[in-house]
Amino acid sequence: MAEKLAPREKGFSEWYVDLVQKAKLADYSDVKGCMVIRPNGYAIWENMQRVLDKMFKDLGHKNAYFPLLIPESYLKKEAEHVEGFNPQLAVVTHAGGAKLEEPYVIRPTSETIINRSFAKWIQSYRDLPLLINQWANVMRWEMRTRLFLRTTEFLWQEGHTCHETEEDAEKETLQMLEVYRKFAEDYMAMPVMTGRKTESEKFAGALRTYSIEAMMQDKKALQAGTSHNLGQNFAKAFDTMFQGRDGKQHHVWQTSWGVSTRLIGGLIMTHSDDSGLIVPPRLAPTHVVIIPIAGKATDAEKTQVLEKSHALAADLKKAGLSVVVDDDDTKSPGWKYSEHELIGTCLRVELGPKDLAKGSCVMVRRDVKQKEFIPLDQAVGKAQEMLEQMQTSLFEKAKSFQEANTFEVNSYEEMKEKADAGFLLAHWNGDAKVEARIKEETGLTTRNRPFAQKQEAGKCVVTGEPSPGRIVFSKAY
Amino acid sequence: MAEKLAPREKGFSEWYVDLVQKAKLADYSDVKGCMVIRPNGYAIWENMQRVLDKMFKDLGHKNAYFPLLIPESYLKKEAEHVEGFNPQLAVVTHAGGAKLEEPYVIRPTSETIINRSFAKWIQSYRDLPLLINQWANVMRWEMRTRLFLRTTEFLWQEGHTCHETEEDAEKETLQMLEVYRKFAEDYMAMPVMTGRKTESEKFAGALRTYSIEAMMQDKKALQAGTSHNLGQNFAKAFDTMFQGRDGKQHHVWQTSWGVSTRLIGGLIMTHSDDSGLIVPPRLAPTHVVIIPIAGKATDAEKTQVLEKSHALAADLKKAGLSVVVDDDDTKSPGWKYSEHELIGTCLRVELGPKDLAKGSCVMVRRDVKQKEFIPLDQAVGKAQEMLEQMQTSLFEKAKSFQEANTFEVNSYEEMKEKADAGFLLAHWNGDAKVEARIKEETGLTTRNRPFAQKQEAGKCVVTGEPSPGRIVFSKAY
Repeated sequence: MAEKLAPREKGFSEWYVDLVQKAKLADYSDVKGCMVIRPNGYAIWENMQRVLDKMFKDLGHKNAYFPLLIPESYLKKEAEHVEGFNPQLAVVTHAGGAKLEEPYVIRPTSETIINRSFAKWIQSYRDLPLLINQWANVMRWEMRTRLFLRTTEFLWQEGHTCHETEEDAEKETLQMLEVYRKFAEDYMAMPVMTGRKTESEKFAGALRTYSIEAMMQDKKALQAGTSHNLGQNFAKAFDTMFQGRDGKQHHVWQTSWGVSTRLIGGLIMTHSDDSGLIVPPRLAPTHVVIIPIAGKATDAEKTQVLEKSHALAADLKKAGLSVVVDDDDTKSPGWKYSEHELIGTCLRVELGPKDLAKGSCVMVRRDVKQKEFIPLDQAVGKAQEMLEQMQTSLFEKAKSFQEANTFEVNSYEEMKEKADAGFLLAHWNGDAKVEARIKEETGLTTRNRPFAQKQEAGKCVVTGEPSPGRIVFSKAY
Repeated sequence: MAEKLAPREKGFSEWYVDLVQKAKLADYSDVKGCMVIRPNGYAIWENMQRVLDKMFKDLGHKNAYFPLLIPESYLKKEAEHVEGFNPQLAVVTHAGGAKLEEPYVIRPTSETIINRSFAKWIQSYRDLPLLINQWANVMRWEMRTRLFLRTTEFLWQEGHTCHETEEDAEKETLQMLEVYRKFAEDYMAMPVMTGRKTESEKFAGALRTYSIEAMMQDKKALQAGTSHNLGQNFAKAFDTMFQGRDGKQHHVWQTSWGVSTRLIGGLIMTHSDDSGLIVPPRLAPTHVVIIPIAGKATDAEKTQVLEKSHALAADLKKAGLSVVVDDDDTKSPGWKYSEHELIGTCLRVELGPKDLAKGSCVMVRRDVKQKEFIPLDQAVGKAQEMLEQMQTSLFEKAKSFQEANTFEVNSYEEMKEKADAGFLLAHWNGDAKVEARIKEETGLTTRNRPFAQKQEAGKCVVTGEPSPGRIVFSKAY
């Protein structure tokens, strides 16, 4: 049998870390807080990249690449930005055998160095909008790290755009948030709340930050993507200007937005179970494993089963599915079932001499684990159908879970009681000090002010002062 | 008119740097030796990645990702390796606001940190071969840099594989060299010489290094890709072992191989001309630009021309081509011709009212620049045909150039005379000191001992001592 995972109810964190390692998704390294993304994990990231990259390009964004290292002085040009990122920087002080005159930092994010280029590239309103995206590694020195969720180095995409007006920038900011929502829900099958972050939770240097927030199976929130309206903050720091239609020089209006390998952690914690990984079919590296069963079969039967297995694999591949035939003689079918449940293959096909005699096979969906007997001549259509059902069903299950664990709370007492219960919709006076006190006393942080939540005036649960509407509090990763 | 380039004959280097910047392929940054890869350049890299990634995966390689930072002590575990890379390292000494106990270096290549993982992952011969590839940024602090060709930071792929036997490792090393040759010749239309590097030119830590070497238009060589048989050097340094079929522990046999954004420089210097970039169609971001001509046309005619332009674009796209319609009113057709020659669009279609009346259009191949009148109803097929011809023709032209500038030389005098003439096939006694002397006195370096060259004994052009066969000397990038 494949190694068993620590079950979720004994400790969600332990289960998560155990799963990530046993399913060979990622591994610790000797470099503080840095992970190794193993082929099983990287294949999911590649699928995410493929989908997101197309979504970005369909909206006119183009990829580019900017230096890994940023002169320390660049970060200091935007006051809030440097304050926010300074404690997390990795600094290169020596290179080529000598001490550097000015240290470089490894990019924690690229607004500053990208603005340096934008300032050169943009002359006139005709150059706008400028729509750029970068796929890259970034580094933020974290005290407490966890595979995929918070690592010193991570992989991400960072979009950076310039616009003629504040309105255009706001439109782009919200458009990209919507792209993230769509990706999270339609591909990751992970329902998210879209909304605006508070002043204290916004990106260092932004005017406004919006996020998508998902609920993990332990009812904690995961900020899964952010989109920032940067206003003219970086443009002013770097003189990123354009000649407007009025013939005068203006600072551009900018946005930036990003999602990272953290999404893989979100995907795992949304769907997986005590047997291992569950991946929504639209992002799954392997859709189908065919396991030939030949325990007490004759050699002739074995040959037949193998031939049929490979023929079926070929048909499934023709239909666009990713398929493996696990015909390793040294492992039992039971071991293979466990192994493929662990690594998250979406659909298992069992095929033995008895099945073949009946002209059928057994199909088992990874998430529901029910055996279905399928006529072989319907196997391809049925596999496609089951994968579509799985995609929908994973989303619906996660959506129900999120809804069942979202509450309106109307007093600070109730908030404390329900601190671990999920998303808490509460009135708050908008004061950052009160927000900080709640965080300190309860561990709850503001996630965002959800667009879907009708904003009606009320009274702050802590101070009783006026509140413009409910905001979501939750414990979070 | 678009800005004119510095012509090649006035200085090949100046032309190159001018082209890279004016065609918006890449730009300098304020970070020493680091470049910004602009969307026009990055799009070529994405096409290269797409093709190479598929070639690797078709041979069973899987992508993974390892940390950017490497503990300094790792590099020291392999003596030749650290000696080779030490002068080029960028070092992180501080992070998270504190001095690090052990400095980290930014990866110049990843053999060491990858072996640390391999040693954990591999138990038995059943885990072999292990075939891994990584797409990543790396950093080597260079004194003299040039956009794409030699930059402090560059993007690349690095393959890392482990095998049971030396023979398997050698087979993999040569197989990947052949993948590079195929990619260079069939996609980049850049003929290359495959062969083995000398001891002094091999990778630091390798047993044997093989390379593909291309000839640029200035007759200098460009090492465009390398494949290394690492033997057991890193395996021994990192205890990367497996239980063999004999039940005993053995060190694995390894390979590594890489190509980088340097290829973009090679592509430019192989094909481009004084008008700008020429890209082989199989890697071109844009295959066709349609330029509607409407100088003295009536409004009705203009509308017709525009409609037909977009209809033709749609048909070409349906046939799998990448197409733009340049219908910007503020620019003249002449300006657009120059601009698209500069940025390397493969095929230009001119379409005006007169053409429309005749049911034809004008097509111009970027490389030969001859106008052809094509019936509109044959435009799609003809465009495909012309692109295929262009792909073939670019390769043949470059191949003839390489052949015409490859010489057998039989004395040191002749070698000095022909030092700038191209590839020089000369006898050499295999002594690294003689190799170093030739380099110092003539600027010529050994490129590789080409597989295609029949190895017949002769006498070293410098010492008169026995030589096992001719090796290629050339000036090089």
